[in-house]
Amino acid sequence: MANDNRSIAVFDSGIGGLTVVRELMHRLPNEDIVYFGDTARVPYGIKSSETVTRFARETCEFLLQFDPKIIVVACNTASAAALPTLKETLPVPSIGVVEPGAREAILRARGGTIAVIATEATINSDAYRRAMRRFDEGARVIQKPCPLFVPIAEEGRASGDAITMAVARDYLEPLVRLDPNVLVMGCTHYPLLREAIAQVVGDGVALIDSGEQTARAVIADLTERSALNNAETAGRLTCYVSDNPQRFRELGQRFLNKTIVDVTWISPEQFYSVGHVKTA
Amino acid sequence: MANDNRSIAVFDSGIGGLTVVRELMHRLPNEDIVYFGDTARVPYGIKSSETVTRFARETCEFLLQFDPKIIVVACNTASAAALPTLKETLPVPSIGVVEPGAREAILRARGGTIAVIATEATINSDAYRRAMRRFDEGARVIQKPCPLFVPIAEEGRASGDAITMAVARDYLEPLVRLDPNVLVMGCTHYPLLREAIAQVVGDGVALIDSGEQTARAVIADLTERSALNNAETAGRLTCYVSDNPQRFRELGQRFLNKTIVDVTWISPEQFYSVGHVKTA
Repeated sequence: MANDNRSIAVFDSGIGGLTVVRELMHRLPNEDIVYFGDTARVPYGIKSSETVTRFARETCEFLLQFDPKIIVVACNTASAAALPTLKETLPVPSIGVVEPGAREAILRARGGTIAVIATEATINSDAYRRAMRRFDEGARVIQKPCPLFVPIAEEGRASGDAITMAVARDYLEPLVRLDPNVLVMGCTHYPLLREAIAQVVGDGVALIDSGEQTARAVIADLTERSALNNAETAGRLTCYVSDNPQRFRELGQRFLNKTIVDVTWISPEQFYSVGHVKTA
Repeated sequence: MANDNRSIAVFDSGIGGLTVVRELMHRLPNEDIVYFGDTARVPYGIKSSETVTRFARETCEFLLQFDPKIIVVACNTASAAALPTLKETLPVPSIGVVEPGAREAILRARGGTIAVIATEATINSDAYRRAMRRFDEGARVIQKPCPLFVPIAEEGRASGDAITMAVARDYLEPLVRLDPNVLVMGCTHYPLLREAIAQVVGDGVALIDSGEQTARAVIADLTERSALNNAETAGRLTCYVSDNPQRFRELGQRFLNKTIVDVTWISPEQFYSVGHVKTA
């Protein structure tokens, strides 16, 4: 049986991508995962496509030194802005969160209206709607940026919190009036607010977690390429951040749903030195 | 009469510092102002002191090319983290927002309790309390991070908005119970939420706008050094940003209270090339 014990590399602007890691660890417990959170430059969601693409390219250069078998762009903003460009130059396969979420939304909508909530940058990129229309050119898509959801999730406000519920109603009720039957959580922070979101949109609307769909897509890809790790020992999660390892560890536990043991702070000299070698 | 027609340089992590510029333009209408907003790396308020200091130093290198007569650190997080370090190496005078706000708070408190609200990084640095205790070693200071105020102000939610009011009550009511007689708005975004804040804390609490106090301190410094610009023509505001000039222009108008005409997007190559020359 084929075996590939190289790591799965995952990156995000900060901690949100850990919701994707959580799904990967749950489904592929013996894979090693290398995670990079760009916490010195977080968030990406309010930045331009050009800048986000530059950040993502630099991060991929950093991650390539670990010889990964796949790079998972576990950030909707970076997937929307940079994935096509990255795919052109990366020497390993890569997968983003937009396409798996979009595909599942099309399957579940059965012709109904699909609502997408995400950061400003993801919505402005129109990436979800474009991906959905590649799967179904008649797809009807409505999209709304929800900028306060990220800081609310980072503050650790639970779904039952009064502020969380007030903000969820404020953002989502105008969407509900258009009667969607699917809602895509197009930001890796949003699954932490899943209950609040579900309560506002009601049982009739299927919630799609793009991160969960991405974990499935990674498994499908590795299976197809016979690149799963068949080790019988538990995989290891190694985290690198560009700033504030303490904050990453504290907040990250909520996103990962378990303790984060191994976090290393990468100085800019280190981060860029790798990039310069690789691009030289 | 002495005259110094060089610019006043002002910087912030993003748009918040424009509330300081607004005060400067109001009080010194014939001064030229060069503003830099580090919108590619905004916000600073959740980042480590080391990283914020690096960002601030790089920005100062960029601004020195304009031969300013003073550099105003119009960002509480950067003032708290980096100002002492910057002062050691900068070849021109510099002024931050923490000390002017702290001084005014001491004067107004007359021995009562002083509450400070700011970003996580500013509160963690303890810079306001330390500055206040330099002016009055018996000062009683309580401090609270209010992370949602920045994205709420950036979303353009007015003070009357239901979410703004709910968040203001959530953050501030526990402070009000400790009966402060002064509240320092220790983040340049917060003056946009002044009415909501005032409504929750009530008439008995004096609100200090650190940005306004900083503008006064700049005038005092330039007057003392005979470095005011005596031109009779209106001064010019020139803005540079590291990302997203369009978003800066749109949001910035609310912070500046007038139209922003002149915004230039600085590429990283340009930003760093200046720094490398200066530090070489």
